[in-house]
Amino acid sequence: MNFISDNTAGASAPVMAALMAAQDGVASAYGGDEWTRRVEALFADIFERDVAVFLVASGTAANALALASLTRPWGAVITHEESHVADDECGAPEFFSDGAKLIGLHGAGNKLSPESVAQALGRFREGALHQVQPQAVSITQATECGTIYTPAEVAALKQAGAARGLRLHMDGARFANALVTLGCAPAEITWRAGVDVLSFGGTKNGAWAAEAVIFFDSALAGEMRWRRKRAGHTLSKGRFLGAQFEGLLRDGHWLGLARHANAMATRLAEAVTAGAICRLAWPCEANEVFLVLSGPLQAALKQAGVAYLPWSDRALAEGRGLTPDEIVGRFVMSFSTRAAEIDRLIGVLEPARR
Amino acid sequence: MNFISDNTAGASAPVMAALMAAQDGVASAYGGDEWTRRVEALFADIFERDVAVFLVASGTAANALALASLTRPWGAVITHEESHVADDECGAPEFFSDGAKLIGLHGAGNKLSPESVAQALGRFREGALHQVQPQAVSITQATECGTIYTPAEVAALKQAGAARGLRLHMDGARFANALVTLGCAPAEITWRAGVDVLSFGGTKNGAWAAEAVIFFDSALAGEMRWRRKRAGHTLSKGRFLGAQFEGLLRDGHWLGLARHANAMATRLAEAVTAGAICRLAWPCEANEVFLVLSGPLQAALKQAGVAYLPWSDRALAEGRGLTPDEIVGRFVMSFSTRAAEIDRLIGVLEPARR
Amino acid sequence: MNFISDNTAGASAPVMAALMAAQDGVASAYGGDEWTRRVEALFADIFERDVAVFLVASGTAANALALASLTRPWGAVITHEESHVADDECGAPEFFSDGAKLIGLHGAGNKLSPESVAQALGRFREGALHQVQPQAVSITQATECGTIYTPAEVAALKQAGAARGLRLHMDGARFANALVTLGCAPAEITWRAGVDVLSFGGTKNGAWAAEAVIFFDSALAGEMRWRRKRAGHTLSKGRFLGAQFEGLLRDGHWLGLARHANAMATRLAEAVTAGAICRLAWPCEANEVFLVLSGPLQAALKQAGVAYLPWSDRALAEGRGLTPDEIVGRFVMSFSTRAAEIDRLIGVLEPARR
Amino acid sequence: MNFISDNTAGASAPVMAALMAAQDGVASAYGGDEWTRRVEALFADIFERDVAVFLVASGTAANALALASLTRPWGAVITHEESHVADDECGAPEFFSDGAKLIGLHGAGNKLSPESVAQALGRFREGALHQVQPQAVSITQATECGTIYTPAEVAALKQAGAARGLRLHMDGARFANALVTLGCAPAEITWRAGVDVLSFGGTKNGAWAAEAVIFFDSALAGEMRWRRKRAGHTLSKGRFLGAQFEGLLRDGHWLGLARHANAMATRLAEAVTAGAICRLAWPCEANEVFLVLSGPLQAALKQAGVAYLPWSDRALAEGRGLTPDEIVGRFVMSFSTRAAEIDRLIGVLEPARR
Repeated sequence: MNFISDNTAGASAPVMAALMAAQDGVASAYGGDEWTRRVEALFADIFERDVAVFLVASGTAANALALASLTRPWGAVITHEESHVADDECGAPEFFSDGAKLIGLHGAGNKLSPESVAQALGRFREGALHQVQPQAVSITQATECGTIYTPAEVAALKQAGAARGLRLHMDGARFANALVTLGCAPAEITWRAGVDVLSFGGTKNGAWAAEAVIFFDSALAGEMRWRRKRAGHTLSKGRFLGAQFEGLLRDGHWLGLARHANAMATRLAEAVTAGAICRLAWPCEANEVFLVLSGPLQAALKQAGVAYLPWSDRALAEGRGLTPDEIVGRFVMSFSTRAAEIDRLIGVLEPARR
Repeated sequence: MNFISDNTAGASAPVMAALMAAQDGVASAYGGDEWTRRVEALFADIFERDVAVFLVASGTAANALALASLTRPWGAVITHEESHVADDECGAPEFFSDGAKLIGLHGAGNKLSPESVAQALGRFREGALHQVQPQAVSITQATECGTIYTPAEVAALKQAGAARGLRLHMDGARFANALVTLGCAPAEITWRAGVDVLSFGGTKNGAWAAEAVIFFDSALAGEMRWRRKRAGHTLSKGRFLGAQFEGLLRDGHWLGLARHANAMATRLAEAVTAGAICRLAWPCEANEVFLVLSGPLQAALKQAGVAYLPWSDRALAEGRGLTPDEIVGRFVMSFSTRAAEIDRLIGVLEPARR
Repeated sequence: MNFISDNTAGASAPVMAALMAAQDGVASAYGGDEWTRRVEALFADIFERDVAVFLVASGTAANALALASLTRPWGAVITHEESHVADDECGAPEFFSDGAKLIGLHGAGNKLSPESVAQALGRFREGALHQVQPQAVSITQATECGTIYTPAEVAALKQAGAARGLRLHMDGARFANALVTLGCAPAEITWRAGVDVLSFGGTKNGAWAAEAVIFFDSALAGEMRWRRKRAGHTLSKGRFLGAQFEGLLRDGHWLGLARHANAMATRLAEAVTAGAICRLAWPCEANEVFLVLSGPLQAALKQAGVAYLPWSDRALAEGRGLTPDEIVGRFVMSFSTRAAEIDRLIGVLEPARR
Repeated sequence: MNFISDNTAGASAPVMAALMAAQDGVASAYGGDEWTRRVEALFADIFERDVAVFLVASGTAANALALASLTRPWGAVITHEESHVADDECGAPEFFSDGAKLIGLHGAGNKLSPESVAQALGRFREGALHQVQPQAVSITQATECGTIYTPAEVAALKQAGAARGLRLHMDGARFANALVTLGCAPAEITWRAGVDVLSFGGTKNGAWAAEAVIFFDSALAGEMRWRRKRAGHTLSKGRFLGAQFEGLLRDGHWLGLARHANAMATRLAEAVTAGAICRLAWPCEANEVFLVLSGPLQAALKQAGVAYLPWSDRALAEGRGLTPDEIVGRFVMSFSTRAAEIDRLIGVLEPARR
């Protein structure tokens, strides 16, 4: 049993079928193909408006290209100190933006608050010569702690930066997982709430390697084709990206995949709670479950060969009251997680509860 | 009929089969998977030695990462003025290397000569404070004009830069095509001839999106994992890259694909020559054919809806004696080009020969 | 009366005299001159060892060049969150290092502690692919709060990073001011305590525009000549930098200038303390005095036209117990501050004390 | 006797006097001083219009900052292959512009022609995804070969790039020398001829370290304050730059200095021509003389200890008909060159003429 991440899965059957259907024949290279055109139309449908779409093969590329489009080299991006862009991309945003700064803020559940954004803006004076200039806010939906922002929360963050003209980026590596929990329209949690650019994740959702940078303000997208090309992210056989997304997006398949992953997470969260097996470090709002693991629980998992990611640092930093022998473990569910796996996991944990 | 490029094709059946076989189950992310391990072993076999292998999804990424590994920001790369790295990657090598310079040299058939390299070194004095410092030579195999370097020619270029310690990079986007023409061992045309880093092309050969940066000197590879990651080129589902390469490399499939593409090109080149249809701008040494097209030939192609790439500038720059109404057209064959297509193309050209 | 900073002063008489003496005649350009040679010898004397010296015209350039020499683009520099490199150089270290990250830590009196360095290292795992790699620690001597590090404190910081191979940089924009307070040898507070590279400040000390990057480990200096040149910081009339430093360093003039500035600061600090005029936000250890200013004191200063820098944010961040109507004001003394100015300032403050 | 360059001289007396007058008193830092304000007004007078002025300490910084303001990282600057920006700044333009490309063109006398610019634009297709985008032309006035552009020639170059919206930069390290030869108004050879940004040289003219980036289109200058700051080129004691320029610009002193340097060059050029001592490689149009030196002349110069710069490569590249024993030597005159030196030099050369 491996619950390390949702990127340890392969690809969903419809994605493979779409690739198979695209295997033969000649197509224009570098995104000039029909698959890419159709995916652009699908995204316009999904978001109920014109959008500028750029497909790439990795989430780090999507995020770094998006942030570079929003900042100047002397600019700064306000984000959570533990966000993926700040802490898990080895400086990609700094590389792509030619040196812009990420200002990492504290915040419970990996979420930014309007107050913390306002406070950060107070520290970086507008127009000051000696300081980098905040130009964007970047949030993750769902967050690295499996929590989610409501439309109102997103709008409040946009508002917090509005007086300074800050743009809003959403890292949606797990956008689908957040969306199915919210139950709202994709437009509602993005551009209607003030999001300017979205990194729309396909890989964790069920593709091999497919992410989309979606600009809701096309004026921001004008230089993106060159940015993507010179970063080596304009794949020559662009249909490969287009076909994956077509497989995902057709007939709401992407939402089905996310609903399944979330359901598996909920199944685990409810079982540990109902069975008083252990506490959750954060509420389970998407496809991740963070379990507070006592020594016996850790031992049981080890003996059963269950793989998960230790996550204690962030819980400790938030003062979530771990005892010395407790750790937090991250368990992530994907489109391919089976209910039987969850049940086996519960079977491992239950006998070891205190 | 579309002969624009070998990247307008899809993927070969063994590549798709390998992907299909990798679809299910859990695998470590970011290149920690078994497919990637097996591909590393396959490359070690192919090159008859230990190699450090880094898989990426685009040729521009492979080249730019390789060159960045060989130069400092104040360094320079000597290359042909029309090479892909100099002229078709929108500044990617400059971006990845944090500003290093490409020194573009003239050279017939898109090939560098030891004399031109020596002359360039004469213009950039070693240790001079005011000038960038040449630190690498980059050649393309096969070249953009479909010509190829022999092992002796490669060795002579390495030798030309040896006194200054220049490293040698080979852009092998069409490495397989060159190799099957040469009929030599992969080792002979690479590290035994002095190549330090090879961009090994999989995409044009028959994959969806798979290239490998292969370091023959592992000391050069030490920082590559961070370079690749912060450029967004470390794909999370690394098995996707590994599986494609496994499909290609197993049982010499890659060589078979290249042999087919080359045979199709030869079929065309021999037919136009035998039938006195038109001249070749450069000898056909791999999978590309450059036809000198008279007005009537151009008209016949247009009427038949044959797509090809105009390539006159380079032929003119080399003084290849085009008349005012002649142009050069590039016709590229891929693994999926069928003999019947070539024959149809010849059928279009023949009636229009002067 | 203007106490905004020590960079609002002009140049000391010996500096001007040295420039005047260098005015005529021919000299090799770009640092190939005799003045620069003599300054290198003077620095070797001062630090009691061979050093590699690079003269530049600004402190931001000195710091950014030094840090770029210590880090890779995917590297990180641990520093105080309010240090000059982190907060007052508009991203220069990020620019010069091609995107390295500054990790800003809390710390009373703008000082780093070994514990905070160790904790930061714990957050950035060695060799981790997804995170930037800490490669240097940067401290300021004297700090932005006018406090200073003892040799033992410096050594402890070096020790805190030793297991990870971290290099130690000292931003010595006010190095002379710290040194005369410590009363130790320059070697003792630098390389003997573990400093690898020092930004030695000349401008605030009494020059027009003269800073020196001093490498105690010459192996780190190998690429500096190119770094400096391509940043536009290799001045053609290099004697201009050399002459200024010769004017400063000869016969201990630089120490005399710093002693005077410190004495002026002490005069103010002692007067406000002795006269119970107000509290000091931080102890006065160099040439800066941070006064906690009540409403009436602020009003008195305003009426008298005294210029100083508001500095409350940092004091508040440290929880230094300001009441709502109190602010902290920074008063900086330079080589040209006269005792009569201090006395006039005290004359302004005294009547307004509570 | 040293004729290596005009940057081997010191500073003119009025520059030193202006510095001396600025030595005392308090002034706002970072360019907020009165000297800088007055210099801005002087430049507005000189150019007969509003200008945005940014003072820096080196010509490389001025050029690199100017070019970075005109290009995007995927942009390109068309320039002469032997221009200072292309060949003598160790990649500074690439560094400051985050990787933009310099396209170096051939051209007699180090000058660009409208035809060569048009041809270069033909090679880089507008909007092409795979190629960098030309966005500026950069010319040197006077050139590295001591030749100058007329207003009509400058206007023709601007016109050559107009359809593609190319901006025009003039590297005026020796602007004053060109101007006094042209005898026209500064406006006529700059903005009225289409120059958008000028690097106005003060250092070679007679200052210690003072250059000005002058924007004739203030819209281009909007980000320059941050660019300059983060490059470490915003000197804290800004009056030091302002005072130098005030010393230079007041009462036409700068023009007098240039007239003197040019007269010294003319004195040499006329003497070698009148006396049939040797040929000139290029016409003497400013303050540089390029002598074609036979073996005996080289020997005589060596014996007399005359220092000059070998410059044969460029003459050979232009096919200027050097015999195997001839070289070209560059002799540069500065504000401080005395007529007696020229006469002594002629005295050395004359006996060795063939």
